[in-house]
Amino acid sequence: MRDIHEPDISRAASDAVSLHAQTLHASLGDASMESMTLLNEIAGTYPDAISFAAGRPYEGFYDVEQIHAYLREFCAHLRGDLGMSEAAVARALFQYGDTKGIIAGLVARSLAVDEGIEADPASVVVTVGCQEAMFLVLRALRAGDRDALLAPSPTYVGLTGAALLADLPVLPVRTGETGLDLDDLSARLRQARAAGRRVRACYVTPDFANPVGVSLSLADRRRLLDLAEAEDLLLLEDNAYGLLNTAPERPPTLKALDRHQRVVYLGSFAKTGMPGARVGYVVAGQRVTGGRGGSVLLADELSKIKSMLTVNTPPIAQAVIGGKLLAHGCSMAAANRREAEVYRRNLDHVRDGLRRRLGHCPGVTWNAPTGGFFLVVTVPFTVDDELLAYAARRHGVLFTPMHHFYGSTAGHHQLRLSISTLTPDRIEEGLDRLAALVTERLPRA
Amino acid sequence: MRDIHEPDISRAASDAVSLHAQTLHASLGDASMESMTLLNEIAGTYPDAISFAAGRPYEGFYDVEQIHAYLREFCAHLRGDLGMSEAAVARALFQYGDTKGIIAGLVARSLAVDEGIEADPASVVVTVGCQEAMFLVLRALRAGDRDALLAPSPTYVGLTGAALLADLPVLPVRTGETGLDLDDLSARLRQARAAGRRVRACYVTPDFANPVGVSLSLADRRRLLDLAEAEDLLLLEDNAYGLLNTAPERPPTLKALDRHQRVVYLGSFAKTGMPGARVGYVVAGQRVTGGRGGSVLLADELSKIKSMLTVNTPPIAQAVIGGKLLAHGCSMAAANRREAEVYRRNLDHVRDGLRRRLGHCPGVTWNAPTGGFFLVVTVPFTVDDELLAYAARRHGVLFTPMHHFYGSTAGHHQLRLSISTLTPDRIEEGLDRLAALVTERLPRA
Repeated sequence: MRDIHEPDISRAASDAVSLHAQTLHASLGDASMESMTLLNEIAGTYPDAISFAAGRPYEGFYDVEQIHAYLREFCAHLRGDLGMSEAAVARALFQYGDTKGIIAGLVARSLAVDEGIEADPASVVVTVGCQEAMFLVLRALRAGDRDALLAPSPTYVGLTGAALLADLPVLPVRTGETGLDLDDLSARLRQARAAGRRVRACYVTPDFANPVGVSLSLADRRRLLDLAEAEDLLLLEDNAYGLLNTAPERPPTLKALDRHQRVVYLGSFAKTGMPGARVGYVVAGQRVTGGRGGSVLLADELSKIKSMLTVNTPPIAQAVIGGKLLAHGCSMAAANRREAEVYRRNLDHVRDGLRRRLGHCPGVTWNAPTGGFFLVVTVPFTVDDELLAYAARRHGVLFTPMHHFYGSTAGHHQLRLSISTLTPDRIEEGLDRLAALVTERLPRA
Repeated sequence: MRDIHEPDISRAASDAVSLHAQTLHASLGDASMESMTLLNEIAGTYPDAISFAAGRPYEGFYDVEQIHAYLREFCAHLRGDLGMSEAAVARALFQYGDTKGIIAGLVARSLAVDEGIEADPASVVVTVGCQEAMFLVLRALRAGDRDALLAPSPTYVGLTGAALLADLPVLPVRTGETGLDLDDLSARLRQARAAGRRVRACYVTPDFANPVGVSLSLADRRRLLDLAEAEDLLLLEDNAYGLLNTAPERPPTLKALDRHQRVVYLGSFAKTGMPGARVGYVVAGQRVTGGRGGSVLLADELSKIKSMLTVNTPPIAQAVIGGKLLAHGCSMAAANRREAEVYRRNLDHVRDGLRRRLGHCPGVTWNAPTGGFFLVVTVPFTVDDELLAYAARRHGVLFTPMHHFYGSTAGHHQLRLSISTLTPDRIEEGLDRLAALVTERLPRA
């Protein structure tokens, strides 16, 4: 009865059904969903171009044996610290696990060590990257057509995408020199409410925000929390880059300053652990009242959504991240000392290089992040995807046109440079190429 | 400025904000979302009870060293078969990867070897378990309020949950002795269309469906495909259990019989690879036309959604499953010979044990799956969550009340027995306990 040669794909193709795009979910018709695909395609077409586009961590210290070592470290922890039998250790890695994760306790310890955040492990849900954490929160918060989210413009495309998938409109808030413009936030909030919107939260990345790279001051963090309290607003704090900082002092996260559970904290180990584990998390200690189960943690509601989305974050991936945490005293800051030095050095190098090459060019400026992966260059000519394709083809250099982070409504004279994956030599060569493009496009004096 | 002792959680708790359940997404108010949590809580309260409830694979052969071996096997494949440098191998495991997955080619090979399905690797999206695959497809297919999905009743709770998250109503189709009742399917489809519904697809598990355990005959598979063709209906085929079959012959999957791209195939390595890797996939070779990008594969649209949901399936987890495939000639059937024997032996053992203990009891019957993890027992008394709690407490035995798979609209005299994790001794003891419960509840003659 069974014959592996039975199917004949060439015949099947002849009169196969097709679906019309308009019968699919509206998110698929939105240009934001295609930004990354399009940019990856251009990058893939020019593999030898020097890329200031990839927002990936530095890979110079990668070694596959680390993965084995981290797994062994985590298993030793299960046996030694938690007293598990060999069968229980195997079960923890092989089987389905708790929906909220098997490393929630280690995550909470790392938050205390690295961020001064005292999080109850019960309020932590370990997710498939920070991206799943965003979707869980936005899905939970979207109850009806009036609901909306505030977010800075420009913003991380993953936030835009998750909101599209959750059918939750995003209302833009202006970004100032040091991040979210709080006056504009107040104005937008009032405006939205006057229009009948229910604003469920404001998304914000206080540290080295993607794409602009700047950070909110301590004073603005306190002001933002006061504003949230006064206006009864929830804040979604995304902290993917905060630890990649070699400065001796940095302001505490919003969550560390939060006294009233105003902040849902979105964490990521993509930049500090490894992207290939896809481990992130959300801290949601807010109470949810009036439901079937009485008063429960928002984390438990998010966990229910997760159980129907991915069931668990892969225990194997959690084990690798857990092992990396254990190997460094639960401090991802400690685990990333070398990488943070690389990022700082690269950031300085790119800024110095821009000054030397383009410092004299009228209308060419760049901002001054003190850490993270990104900085933004403003130029007096149009930066679109055609220019990117031209730059890749003609000059062998890649960057990200900023309009992608504005839903194409602005940013048409800006480009984002990512400094995270490059070496000094490649930066020098890349900036030569970028400068050639810029000078070629500058208006003649 | 930075002080890790600064936050004071006890103070924060005093006047913390809370959210009202009615302001959250409607799915969170649905009992289906809580079924698994509730059942897990009962199981957690009675850890010494013998569990016929857990739908987890057999763990008697687990060994943590296998994970290391599979990772090494996959890396050897990247080096040897694909000629990657050591840096490229590390990058493949550590970094973000292609959204559609790094083992799509191996998955396609395994489909050819194990199922006789000739799938273009470009039509494969590797997902975080089959659960994410379900959500991707339902999210894509839900474009408006008229849209609905047909699915058998009873059905897998993960399907119900994914549909709730996608705001897609599920219209139930009767389940007959051997699975989906095709006459009822036709009737329901016509009924739904007459009521103005746009039926996007019908979900079906032809092999050993959870929870009923039975399989569609070859004749019914062909009839279902003909019906789909005649009615212009898409089929979502879930095949989580098909390979766990020691019978010499089994009917081909719908996908293997599909000539017109009527079938979107949902695959899982949870039962055959390991649940802790959380690797599943979807095969979606359908064309989507009329969109921004011209004619594209449905797989590419699903990949766009995935890029905003989980970004990638963890490459580390894919590497472990890829290694297991490579170690067994890309055949998960070959990799699971021992486990399939265990399941078959357990299924026979449970059926024999039920006959010996309850064969004479009026009104007590059970169905006759030929493979998979589950069978269903019908009894002449009410089976609800209170009975389960009583059974756990008083008799030390766990099962799953079937009403959970009917959205509590039916199944109140049925229980699901899962046979996958037990040993013969535990089955004997567990059936003694179950029989004690059943005889205690039977009406006096």
